[in-house]
Amino acid sequence: MKLYDLPASPNARRVRIFIAEKGLEIPMEPVDMAAGENKTKEYLAKNSLGRMPLLELDDGIHIAESIAICRYLENIHPENPLFGKNELDQAIVEMWQRRMEFIFLNPIINVFRHTHEMWKGQLTQIAKVAEVESEEVKTKMDWLNTELEGNQFIAGDNYTVADITAQCAFVMGKAAIGIRIPEELTNLSAWWSLVTSRPTARA
Amino acid sequence: MKLYDLPASPNARRVRIFIAEKGLEIPMEPVDMAAGENKTKEYLAKNSLGRMPLLELDDGIHIAESIAICRYLENIHPENPLFGKNELDQAIVEMWQRRMEFIFLNPIINVFRHTHEMWKGQLTQIAKVAEVESEEVKTKMDWLNTELEGNQFIAGDNYTVADITAQCAFVMGKAAIGIRIPEELTNLSAWWSLVTSRPTARA
Repeated sequence: MKLYDLPASPNARRVRIFIAEKGLEIPMEPVDMAAGENKTKEYLAKNSLGRMPLLELDDGIHIAESIAICRYLENIHPENPLFGKNELDQAIVEMWQRRMEFIFLNPIINVFRHTHEMWKGQLTQIAKVAEVESEEVKTKMDWLNTELEGNQFIAGDNYTVADITAQCAFVMGKAAIGIRIPEELTNLSAWWSLVTSRPTARA
Repeated sequence: MKLYDLPASPNARRVRIFIAEKGLEIPMEPVDMAAGENKTKEYLAKNSLGRMPLLELDDGIHIAESIAICRYLENIHPENPLFGKNELDQAIVEMWQRRMEFIFLNPIINVFRHTHEMWKGQLTQIAKVAEVESEEVKTKMDWLNTELEGNQFIAGDNYTVADITAQCAFVMGKAAIGIRIPEELTNLSAWWSLVTSRPTARA
């Protein structure tokens, strides 16, 4: 098994944290996007969308999409579940994972893509998109702060894939677009301290 | 168990088709968004984001997010699986479900929101977003047509939740923003005929 990695990508980071939380050892091969390595014929044969992360199995099958990769790893290593423990819990974790993705991670990536030098010429950058999504992310931090009342983690009492998605979103928010969690959002700040102090946080 | 429904929503349709494919009978209660029923204190206590669909369990627990609802129904009714049969298959289905969501469903919903009268005043409509995403959806139809070569369904030999997401995307594309599957994309057209002729397609 091998993971094609993109070190700076928040999606790839989700998978790396997941692997570390599971205590797995999976060789990683960084793909140099700036050098176009993801657009070679060879790589496109593995993932026709030319994206990372990508998991290669020993029989040559490829799994793309960060959460699909995590799901596969959870399926073959079910101990210490990060997608929820039982039928209901799994649905609740999935609900929160998706909320964190749609409300924070994807908009934050979008702000970055629509403003950063690196993406110039690769897509039609629309400043207004960045402005609107940025405001929406800030508004939704208040919402998440309220939702965290009485809960240690995003989906309840346990650290799950929903926390991984949220922490990767806020890492990118802070590093790439200057959106920080305001101190007065005490629940969200406490959660942030808790998840970023885990030994896996810098995976 | 009860489903709070939004009849015209492609996300709610995904859940209705899923329920029909599973052969389940779940009472549905339409929520009148135009009348603001989703923003009442009572509804917001069930789903703080005020969105539909929403599954209410008999013990008063609520599950939001269409795919989380489907996952719960799959978990409690595992026969006739729509999320894949085994560990690997489940990852492949998830990969395709997410691709259909990110590449088709979400952009098509976005085009609608950024152009339609109904959304005026509810968000900052940006015409350029609609234009760019619309073109991208058309380009990606070619990609999907190629990917379907040799496969009956999106994720392989079986009808899955990935097909449900894709068909709900293209139903909305056709009805709401005038994007149709071009006839010359023969694999995609054959798939479209196949899925839309299923008895559940109009659920």
